[in-house]
Amino acid sequence: MKMKKIGIVMGSDSDVPIIKEAVQTLREFGLDFDVNVISAHRSPERAHSYALEAEKKYEVIIVGAGGAAHLAGVIASLTPVPVIGIPMPTPELGGLDSLLSTVQMPSGVPVSTMGIGKAGAINAAILAIQILSVANPALRQKIVMYKKQLSNAVSRKDQGLRAKLGLE
Amino acid sequence: MKMKKIGIVMGSDSDVPIIKEAVQTLREFGLDFDVNVISAHRSPERAHSYALEAEKKYEVIIVGAGGAAHLAGVIASLTPVPVIGIPMPTPELGGLDSLLSTVQMPSGVPVSTMGIGKAGAINAAILAIQILSVANPALRQKIVMYKKQLSNAVSRKDQGLRAKLGLE
Amino acid sequence: MKMKKIGIVMGSDSDVPIIKEAVQTLREFGLDFDVNVISAHRSPERAHSYALEAEKKYEVIIVGAGGAAHLAGVIASLTPVPVIGIPMPTPELGGLDSLLSTVQMPSGVPVSTMGIGKAGAINAAILAIQILSVANPALRQKIVMYKKQLSNAVSRKDQGLRAKLGLE
Amino acid sequence: MKMKKIGIVMGSDSDVPIIKEAVQTLREFGLDFDVNVISAHRSPERAHSYALEAEKKYEVIIVGAGGAAHLAGVIASLTPVPVIGIPMPTPELGGLDSLLSTVQMPSGVPVSTMGIGKAGAINAAILAIQILSVANPALRQKIVMYKKQLSNAVSRKDQGLRAKLGLE
Amino acid sequence: MKMKKIGIVMGSDSDVPIIKEAVQTLREFGLDFDVNVISAHRSPERAHSYALEAEKKYEVIIVGAGGAAHLAGVIASLTPVPVIGIPMPTPELGGLDSLLSTVQMPSGVPVSTMGIGKAGAINAAILAIQILSVANPALRQKIVMYKKQLSNAVSRKDQGLRAKLGLE
Amino acid sequence: MKMKKIGIVMGSDSDVPIIKEAVQTLREFGLDFDVNVISAHRSPERAHSYALEAEKKYEVIIVGAGGAAHLAGVIASLTPVPVIGIPMPTPELGGLDSLLSTVQMPSGVPVSTMGIGKAGAINAAILAIQILSVANPALRQKIVMYKKQLSNAVSRKDQGLRAKLGLE
Amino acid sequence: MKMKKIGIVMGSDSDVPIIKEAVQTLREFGLDFDVNVISAHRSPERAHSYALEAEKKYEVIIVGAGGAAHLAGVIASLTPVPVIGIPMPTPELGGLDSLLSTVQMPSGVPVSTMGIGKAGAINAAILAIQILSVANPALRQKIVMYKKQLSNAVSRKDQGLRAKLGLE
Amino acid sequence: MKMKKIGIVMGSDSDVPIIKEAVQTLREFGLDFDVNVISAHRSPERAHSYALEAEKKYEVIIVGAGGAAHLAGVIASLTPVPVIGIPMPTPELGGLDSLLSTVQMPSGVPVSTMGIGKAGAINAAILAIQILSVANPALRQKIVMYKKQLSNAVSRKDQGLRAKLGLE
Repeated sequence: MKMKKIGIVMGSDSDVPIIKEAVQTLREFGLDFDVNVISAHRSPERAHSYALEAEKKYEVIIVGAGGAAHLAGVIASLTPVPVIGIPMPTPELGGLDSLLSTVQMPSGVPVSTMGIGKAGAINAAILAIQILSVANPALRQKIVMYKKQLSNAVSRKDQGLRAKLGLE
Repeated sequence: MKMKKIGIVMGSDSDVPIIKEAVQTLREFGLDFDVNVISAHRSPERAHSYALEAEKKYEVIIVGAGGAAHLAGVIASLTPVPVIGIPMPTPELGGLDSLLSTVQMPSGVPVSTMGIGKAGAINAAILAIQILSVANPALRQKIVMYKKQLSNAVSRKDQGLRAKLGLE
Repeated sequence: MKMKKIGIVMGSDSDVPIIKEAVQTLREFGLDFDVNVISAHRSPERAHSYALEAEKKYEVIIVGAGGAAHLAGVIASLTPVPVIGIPMPTPELGGLDSLLSTVQMPSGVPVSTMGIGKAGAINAAILAIQILSVANPALRQKIVMYKKQLSNAVSRKDQGLRAKLGLE
Repeated sequence: MKMKKIGIVMGSDSDVPIIKEAVQTLREFGLDFDVNVISAHRSPERAHSYALEAEKKYEVIIVGAGGAAHLAGVIASLTPVPVIGIPMPTPELGGLDSLLSTVQMPSGVPVSTMGIGKAGAINAAILAIQILSVANPALRQKIVMYKKQLSNAVSRKDQGLRAKLGLE
Repeated sequence: MKMKKIGIVMGSDSDVPIIKEAVQTLREFGLDFDVNVISAHRSPERAHSYALEAEKKYEVIIVGAGGAAHLAGVIASLTPVPVIGIPMPTPELGGLDSLLSTVQMPSGVPVSTMGIGKAGAINAAILAIQILSVANPALRQKIVMYKKQLSNAVSRKDQGLRAKLGLE
Repeated sequence: MKMKKIGIVMGSDSDVPIIKEAVQTLREFGLDFDVNVISAHRSPERAHSYALEAEKKYEVIIVGAGGAAHLAGVIASLTPVPVIGIPMPTPELGGLDSLLSTVQMPSGVPVSTMGIGKAGAINAAILAIQILSVANPALRQKIVMYKKQLSNAVSRKDQGLRAKLGLE
Repeated sequence: MKMKKIGIVMGSDSDVPIIKEAVQTLREFGLDFDVNVISAHRSPERAHSYALEAEKKYEVIIVGAGGAAHLAGVIASLTPVPVIGIPMPTPELGGLDSLLSTVQMPSGVPVSTMGIGKAGAINAAILAIQILSVANPALRQKIVMYKKQLSNAVSRKDQGLRAKLGLE
Repeated sequence: MKMKKIGIVMGSDSDVPIIKEAVQTLREFGLDFDVNVISAHRSPERAHSYALEAEKKYEVIIVGAGGAAHLAGVIASLTPVPVIGIPMPTPELGGLDSLLSTVQMPSGVPVSTMGIGKAGAINAAILAIQILSVANPALRQKIVMYKKQLSNAVSRKDQGLRAKLGLE
């Protein structure tokens, strides 16, 4: 039986520079994913059908949207699949609008909200993998390794900076 | 030919104390309206069908929602009918979340956004009537009268306060 | 009988780069419009006379203003014509000041508020057309077509991105 | 020659509990004042005529308004008389909306903005007196005395608290 | 093999009135859970050991914390298990501090953030169940049923309100 | 008797690009002024002595400061002379910190607060002139002329834009 | 030689309900302290002399102030003694104004800023003790004990809640 | 006996441009310091061990972190040594997230919070020196001198600006 993919959706192709961080992270973990541009407001019927078909195709859905960022909530309303939202930065309000529109969901319909922007996009991918790893020990092991690499990378930067400053 | 109604939708029946201000205002103007509780997130299929049928039934739609307030945007995405949004006050963030979720719509899909809370609900009704009055001179005349009454009410309050303070 | 125009007013000619998005959108729909620079604070008598004459000349009025953005409210106070407000972005507060000054109107005098900046300007034009389309089936049809084009444009971007990523 | 009064205007009689602090402060200084309820939005013609007549009647004008608080700016646009604005607290946004609507005026048309609420109302009166005292040595002397009383009141509270705590 | 539980942790027992909403929701779904009061700042060693042992005991961890809400991030830093954060409302800033402290995580260490307060607590439970349901068809079915009940509850409220208003 | 000057103080010479707008405006009105760089926090004794001597030298004091902007309040606490505060823009918070630090003064010690940045600096000068004009009919006349010029400048921009757009 | 005290100052006696938390915490540690009500704005000369004499009398100074909270900065500008600031909650803006006015100090003159309100007041006392403990091993030991008690108190609450829920 | 150092920690080496201001300030005072890159979230075990060993090595700890800035709080939870936090500016929210995550600590575990960014970094160093100077008269004298230099620098800037403007 073929494993379902991770679905990635963004509300506008102007979100690509942010969302590609999630794509790249999933690639590094060797996971299969699907990417779509679908607007909750400009292509609502497509958003509706995407959400209704999501359970058959996706294990988890990652959604990036900005401003009155409704896309994650709209998809979450129509599928039992976990939905992860990435609030896009906005030039006027920095993404506070995107964040509040994504996170302040009514009871019963959660959107798992990440931080604003690129770190949020990377984290959406990591959380998706963590979710899959609940039932997948091999993937869990990869997350454990990833966390070690994060730690090692910080140690290397620590040593580099200390060497530069002539400490130790 | 029967005139279409003004549609009023709220995301939760906890919004009734605010939305009834819009209902009451429409009643004062003798306009026909319809009221529904429909949640963008908890009853998304109902929101979808409501929006798709809206053009046949409604001239204008007034939508009240709070928090990640997606309902106005979701309906606006699926109907060419003008949609007026009332951001509900929220206990944590005062309604700033509702306001930003309602107003920061992407280009192409406007939501005509009112102020947060009761004044916003009254104004949603007034704006709906102003919209209808574009093609309805009798209604326009009612708006003109209403504005005069607003002004007179302020004058009476002015006189009352001045009398109380012993001025003039 | 000659149809009335859509009035566009901005508080400063520094608003032109934003407001021209509304102008361009109205042009695409073939609608007749008028454009003025009038400041609520620097040319208040002109704002006053503009508002008093508005009913004779305009079906709807689109107003762009920033900072302590009073122009939309000042015009709305003096005319029964629907007034649409576009909050201008501001360098210090991103336009949150413009947004709150425009949207938080007292009961009885609504300003139909759009999002901050260019998307808000485009949407002001679309909402104006939606308002006119309440009594104009041909215009309504144009809005329906416009919404289809919006959706098609998203689909094309979806296909473009998917092709680029080698999906499907 | 009769000295002109200090004009006090509020946008709504619901502002009385705040504005009476300004009234009371002016009374304590024995200054003559006038009080009106005038709404920038609900009684705009009255606001317009008030502002146009202000120079003949008032030395300084104190304006209290809340939400999209346009009244101070509207009056300041039409009179050369100094205008002091008091942002009213608002239940949803605490008065941040009133503050930004009052203070963020465009260049050329200042509103002298006070803090939100009661302290702002008292300070509006004190500032009005300070303005008059520029050309009135007797009034200047009263301000000097007032500042001494403020200081003495703090000292008494200091002593009271220290006694209560058994200090010194 | 015994299924692992859902871990629930709160930073202070003053969070109980919010967190019990999550507990109650898990009970309704018949899921096994564990509850602890552990402070990231006042009992940091306990937080540390809890996080290190979490993988053996818990499938998902739900964390409620307020103010400088570090608990979810601290636990997420030490376990590969998915961590869901509930920002507590705060009396001064409404929970904006809790929200930003929870959601703005650096890349590599996501916290799945819910809305502020009770709705967030219910949603934390629902999301935990959605995560488990990725590999559990029976649980997935329960989520599908739950979403139907949400929709039905809205319909009943819709009918109740319409009956009360004499509509249809 | 020599007329007293308008005192201008800024907390840092990095404020010069903003404050020079006030200087330039006073020059245009032919008013005599004094300019100082004095920091409430880095040269507190100088701020103290400046404030104590202010009444002998200045009619009005204009103060620009940013961040935890205490300078205007510190000076206002020690002089009966009216103090006008200009909140400086800040790179991190846009000047919201400067604005709140300047405007939210306790009762008894007002700071007449202007908008953030350059418009605020120009307005500080205009307000200072308005204050002096309370007892100076020639200066009042200059303000009346200035307001006419403001209005004329807007009219010219209106005509320019309309010509460019081919309107009228 | 007599050890210097910890100085506590508040801007208004309305701050007592918050500041008494700091007083109570210092009492529990058996430290000697002094308490004063001094307003930066209403009793500025007293604030000035207090700050100038502080080095002789106090090891550390704790300052509580609200709104345009200048007191901590004013004192810090005039003494080399470490100054700890407690931002008071404000009814309108929740204390965000107090926080920004206290924390955003210019380079060279730090105010060690605590959280808004009661937790901030307790923490001001703890930080003062931590500062003194840098050169006082007995006091350091008390802080170590205090941190253990904090941890134990959380453990007891954990056990209490778990017992109540029938866990373990 | 060798004096302990001042510990400096930053959450990411991207914080170096800010943190080097603290380093440079400590160098100017001739103080010994240690610098590390340690992430609360990516190298949590390293943060844990750093905090546990801190008392033996450091008199005071300066911590810079951004976004969900937990590092200062995490270290403060595990050491009795005073911890000073520098909130890093963030591209989306300007550092408001960093500030609130750092300052809003629960009672019992203070983080001495500085302003956002470079001024905060300089002030962290100054505060660290002020803390050490509580028991070190020579260092206290250096702080007194530093404050004089700050004042002199402002005076020079004052004279420079006045000369440039042709004043006095």
